[in-house]
Amino acid sequence: MALTSISKPLAVTAGEPAGIGPELCLALAGTAWARRSVIITDPDVLHARAERLGRRLCVVSYDPAKPGSAALPADGLWVLAQRMPRPAVCGHPDPANAAALLDGLRIAVDGCLKGDFGALVTAPIQKSTINDAGIPFTGHTEFLAELTGTPLPVMLLVAGTLRVALASTHLPLSAVPAYITAGRLTAVIEVLHADLRAKFGIADPDIVVCGLNPHAGEAGHLGREEIEVIEPAIRALCAAGLKLRGPLPADTAFTPAAGKPDAVLAMYHDQGLPVLKYAGFGRAVNVTLGLPIVRTSVDHGTALDIAGSGKADAGSLLAAVELAAKLAGA
Amino acid sequence: MALTSISKPLAVTAGEPAGIGPELCLALAGTAWARRSVIITDPDVLHARAERLGRRLCVVSYDPAKPGSAALPADGLWVLAQRMPRPAVCGHPDPANAAALLDGLRIAVDGCLKGDFGALVTAPIQKSTINDAGIPFTGHTEFLAELTGTPLPVMLLVAGTLRVALASTHLPLSAVPAYITAGRLTAVIEVLHADLRAKFGIADPDIVVCGLNPHAGEAGHLGREEIEVIEPAIRALCAAGLKLRGPLPADTAFTPAAGKPDAVLAMYHDQGLPVLKYAGFGRAVNVTLGLPIVRTSVDHGTALDIAGSGKADAGSLLAAVELAAKLAGA
Repeated sequence: MALTSISKPLAVTAGEPAGIGPELCLALAGTAWARRSVIITDPDVLHARAERLGRRLCVVSYDPAKPGSAALPADGLWVLAQRMPRPAVCGHPDPANAAALLDGLRIAVDGCLKGDFGALVTAPIQKSTINDAGIPFTGHTEFLAELTGTPLPVMLLVAGTLRVALASTHLPLSAVPAYITAGRLTAVIEVLHADLRAKFGIADPDIVVCGLNPHAGEAGHLGREEIEVIEPAIRALCAAGLKLRGPLPADTAFTPAAGKPDAVLAMYHDQGLPVLKYAGFGRAVNVTLGLPIVRTSVDHGTALDIAGSGKADAGSLLAAVELAAKLAGA
Repeated sequence: MALTSISKPLAVTAGEPAGIGPELCLALAGTAWARRSVIITDPDVLHARAERLGRRLCVVSYDPAKPGSAALPADGLWVLAQRMPRPAVCGHPDPANAAALLDGLRIAVDGCLKGDFGALVTAPIQKSTINDAGIPFTGHTEFLAELTGTPLPVMLLVAGTLRVALASTHLPLSAVPAYITAGRLTAVIEVLHADLRAKFGIADPDIVVCGLNPHAGEAGHLGREEIEVIEPAIRALCAAGLKLRGPLPADTAFTPAAGKPDAVLAMYHDQGLPVLKYAGFGRAVNVTLGLPIVRTSVDHGTALDIAGSGKADAGSLLAAVELAAKLAGA
């Protein structure tokens, strides 16, 4: 099957070369996803990891200008080659490679925006190593938002039919209550609603919104943010035609008592993600909503301690690739 | 089988007579649990509910002084009779019955302390109705702690093999960070550890402690409570011989990556209970640790909207009875 006969390929960035990202990408070789994916990294990184793990690998250089030109053998991966200044050493990220890693992301995003790629899938990077290189960097999501001029990226985690979006992400718990304003909450819900329609193809999404406080504040006895912030935001959006339910107690929102919403919006990280990771351990996918491109990601880090050992589970990357293809309509 | 041939019976308070509590108790009739339970309520409440639901019921008066004296027919329930001043109307709690309800709890606790009963199981009450009667009341747990002179009751939720304890319970989210002091945390862990040993029979409990902040603070980048409060408390307790792991990110603590701890200690309500309710919907049990008696409870409220309809699911009450019997060694 020639590439030209199928949809646009996915751009898959291999992430931190000292982490598990490269070996997760190797797991694509030999699967049906190999022909639908282009790995963005230094070919030497993939070759070295394949050798270390005793795997055969044929790297085929991919040219976005001639997508159908190169055949892919059974043990092959298409690679859009970059050069890392320094060889990768498993478990020991090198700040000297940080700038090249970010270049890889730029190449991938440009390719998505130009239409060379159908979607972006990212393997994990090591935030602290990029900072050690003197580059201010708070995470993939924020970097991609900046690259694409996205004012408000929204984090959505997906595990099977369970979808959990976050109204706030990586904040100390003490900063959460003040962060949740009616304006921010409204903007997050609008992005969630728009992308459930545009990317997930759900015509009239049913969204459950959690309260901020336990028991959703219990009529003001356990906090007033529901009454003063969340309920007014929900009311205004419902009046504009959105199908929202809430604020619901978070310990009800994920149970059968809440029905089967298309997504649950948690107010903060640890209100929503423990359930998601419990339900979908090893196959959860992170989707960034609000971007002009489809972007999915694994739900785990670089796992430096097991990089190169062959122990890494590629379940989340495979799920991220599969979901990216689905969202891109590929 | 005469009662004298089995262990001490469980005291089961039927809870708010206008709620689903009475019909949950009816579900015990005809099961093996009927001979091991004594319902504490007004017999008229049970009779009226049975009639409304078209169920046969034989109420047999129970005398704690003569536990083996009364035979129990197949459709019977032992009842330690109280009198409610006013008849119950499904869905409409009456503050006139509030004092009698609390008397029922006192009778049950006294019976447990005297050794007449092996444990206490509580059906739900309506906090606001008790307050409407002019009685200050913040919940079953606090009331039972006061009755038994317990300085620090600890809430543990159980669903199958998953056990989740809470370091703080019904507080607005904004009040949580300041509430979690090293002293409180230490005291909660000591109660949890002691009761996992004494009541659950786990000789050397393995406890996972969650961080307060997302990613357990990510080395101070997302909050410093882990470094300043939680880690020192854990270190001191580990030095004293306890088997504690953490602080772990809450979205790791409930996954296979955290192993299979005997309990997870969440720092606050919505960090721990969404997972527990997701995992154990309809069969979760609330256990109050730290009391001198065994007390379990359903994990839901009075459900006034469906009281008397026959729709209430008795799964949680049956699970609460079963767990109480187990913890009491019955």
